[in-house]
Amino acid sequence: MGKKVKLVKGGLCAPKGFKVSAVSCGIKNPAVERLDLALIYSEHPTVGSAVYTQNEVCAAPVRLSSSYLKSADPRAIIVNSGNANACTGHDGMLKARAMASLTSKALGLKQREIQVCSTGIIGVRLPIERMEPKFPALVESLGNDSDLAARAIMTSDTKPKSVSVSVDIGGVRVRIGAIAKGAGMINPHMATMLCFVTTDAAVTKAEITLATKEAVDQSFNRISVDGDMSTNDTVVVMANGAAENKTITRGGEGSAEFREALTEVMLLLAKKIVSDGERVTKLVEVKVRGAASHLDAERVARAVGNSKLVKCSWNGNDPNWGRIIHAVGYSGARVKEEMVDIYLNGVLAAQNGVAANTHIDKLSAAVAGEQFTVGIDLHLGKGEFNLYTSDLSPEYVLFNREEYALNRTK
Amino acid sequence: MGKKVKLVKGGLCAPKGFKVSAVSCGIKNPAVERLDLALIYSEHPTVGSAVYTQNEVCAAPVRLSSSYLKSADPRAIIVNSGNANACTGHDGMLKARAMASLTSKALGLKQREIQVCSTGIIGVRLPIERMEPKFPALVESLGNDSDLAARAIMTSDTKPKSVSVSVDIGGVRVRIGAIAKGAGMINPHMATMLCFVTTDAAVTKAEITLATKEAVDQSFNRISVDGDMSTNDTVVVMANGAAENKTITRGGEGSAEFREALTEVMLLLAKKIVSDGERVTKLVEVKVRGAASHLDAERVARAVGNSKLVKCSWNGNDPNWGRIIHAVGYSGARVKEEMVDIYLNGVLAAQNGVAANTHIDKLSAAVAGEQFTVGIDLHLGKGEFNLYTSDLSPEYVLFNREEYALNRTK
Repeated sequence: MGKKVKLVKGGLCAPKGFKVSAVSCGIKNPAVERLDLALIYSEHPTVGSAVYTQNEVCAAPVRLSSSYLKSADPRAIIVNSGNANACTGHDGMLKARAMASLTSKALGLKQREIQVCSTGIIGVRLPIERMEPKFPALVESLGNDSDLAARAIMTSDTKPKSVSVSVDIGGVRVRIGAIAKGAGMINPHMATMLCFVTTDAAVTKAEITLATKEAVDQSFNRISVDGDMSTNDTVVVMANGAAENKTITRGGEGSAEFREALTEVMLLLAKKIVSDGERVTKLVEVKVRGAASHLDAERVARAVGNSKLVKCSWNGNDPNWGRIIHAVGYSGARVKEEMVDIYLNGVLAAQNGVAANTHIDKLSAAVAGEQFTVGIDLHLGKGEFNLYTSDLSPEYVLFNREEYALNRTK
Repeated sequence: MGKKVKLVKGGLCAPKGFKVSAVSCGIKNPAVERLDLALIYSEHPTVGSAVYTQNEVCAAPVRLSSSYLKSADPRAIIVNSGNANACTGHDGMLKARAMASLTSKALGLKQREIQVCSTGIIGVRLPIERMEPKFPALVESLGNDSDLAARAIMTSDTKPKSVSVSVDIGGVRVRIGAIAKGAGMINPHMATMLCFVTTDAAVTKAEITLATKEAVDQSFNRISVDGDMSTNDTVVVMANGAAENKTITRGGEGSAEFREALTEVMLLLAKKIVSDGERVTKLVEVKVRGAASHLDAERVARAVGNSKLVKCSWNGNDPNWGRIIHAVGYSGARVKEEMVDIYLNGVLAAQNGVAANTHIDKLSAAVAGEQFTVGIDLHLGKGEFNLYTSDLSPEYVLFNREEYALNRTK
């Protein structure tokens, strides 16, 4: 973390003028008492930005929220867990609109000032009738406990994920708070990745929009093992200006610091998401260097980071560089086999495409920890890319075998 | 299978004029007695063709064999299991040449008339010194037991794979025999896929070359869940003309029948490879229809067939069409969510992108068997593609966790 960005407490409520609340509606299972509906509210007008899934199949709340954002800045985010409201057709759009309508009425806002998000099972109708009675309580309980929201958005996550920082912008202290949820297999492959960011910085719409895209690109887009987004992935940023700094513009005072802080917040959350992937035991950073282009470096990183067999070997603490170079070979990137070097946590495993003269015990030790790097140097150019990924465990498969049948009643 | 193609016995030796043998060299482990070196020999000159891996990282024997094929037709194939001789640099090329040299001398052939293949672990030096003393025995024992070769090329395969057929070409009975090995996760992703085909058909070089490519495209290229080939994948066909049919040319008499038979042989072996994948419990045929193009259909089939989460759900008999449509959405193909229909073994699971009105028990039953189809209709055009794939089991991960460390002695 840069020197100017400091970790602070408070999560979403670290920045001034934001309140959150959460309630239990029994969305997934009425018999189970767990937080599953959260509200994030800005007391002041905001400028807002968002990044939504690129998946061709996208959930009703994503369609609705992206259309709202075109004509209004968000004042509140309403989000449920337990049901993704995806592949639910016309009914899904009605339910998403109902969530926006219930929220806007309860808060006295316009409907398009609401961002609606859902996460959970795909293809099952959203039981809005279980949420509706809870809206008064949701609004009445708005307060400063960010952790309530962090917990309410969890699905298969094992712990809430929250980060908040402060940064000086032209002598004024500005704060950024955020929560996220991920799981699935660490990656926005199937699991929905949600991230909500609050900041009391004063910033232009153009700058927050650009800075959000850049920060997502440097963080959440580097943990996807497939480069593919889920039906519901959403990052929403609300900036309410309550810190009263001089408004940040691209290239203006504090712009670099603000962007660094925003990226840092998202990167920290991205790593938390990887580490908390379903039944994940390793956090692995694949660092590709020397590719003919940055795109080639990304291809190599994703091929390696997404290979089932490479991930299995990591799970078994096996320093199997042969599987790694194999994935390098089919990545689609330009590769000269006889020039490829592979490092496991800094230890040379393969040099010029063949086994390096390193003792196997040293290689095994390099991949034994809960966190290590895999360095791949193609020696062809200056392209580079870093990807955070994980191992693949037997428990992951067991965990993901059954879902749909358990969630359909008929 | 078409009416004109009949299953017969004999494997590689069903066609006239082919002999095989296999010995045990202890390539992987000198302490373990198992067949690991096989020889396939044509008593007559042949026309030959081959398809090799497209992986940028390819094994020494692949490089050598493809260069030999450019200037000579193969009379013999020498193949070892237990070591892939891949990522072994200059040493690997010397060892591959030595295998060709030992074989050619023992048989009295030119070196370039030998095709050399290896399968097994990547990145470990080939212990040719263990093979060398066995060549006299290998040649002396040449006979008609095709099964010896089928067993000798196995790695993690649980059973030998062999098919042989006869087909009438202009009134003359011609035979095609073949063996294959696969495993890994059913797919030529990491596992090496090897297939050796013998035929006593008289056929032109141009026709056998083209027919081989076409047959591979219709079979082995439709079981790859990634569309990526391993470092060692090889299909070699030898046609020795011993059946004395009128020489087959493209478009000439018997050409269609011969191609059908060759494709049928490879497709049967391809399905055997999928079913025998490491710890696989399901053989699933993904049938995509109605795509905007054939390429789009292939993209959809591969995205679905390669999704870890889709494969997990199949392992658990879970009719999770939400995960399937999600993979359809990120496949890169043109998709209109509201037009997508999904069938599980012929039972409608999703219609127009939302859950169909089918009872969950019926859907669960549809995916409970060891073999079922997943039909996906995009209703956008005439593009179609079929892919054979499998489930993903916890046992697969356990099986693939350790390999390299166990195979390196220092």
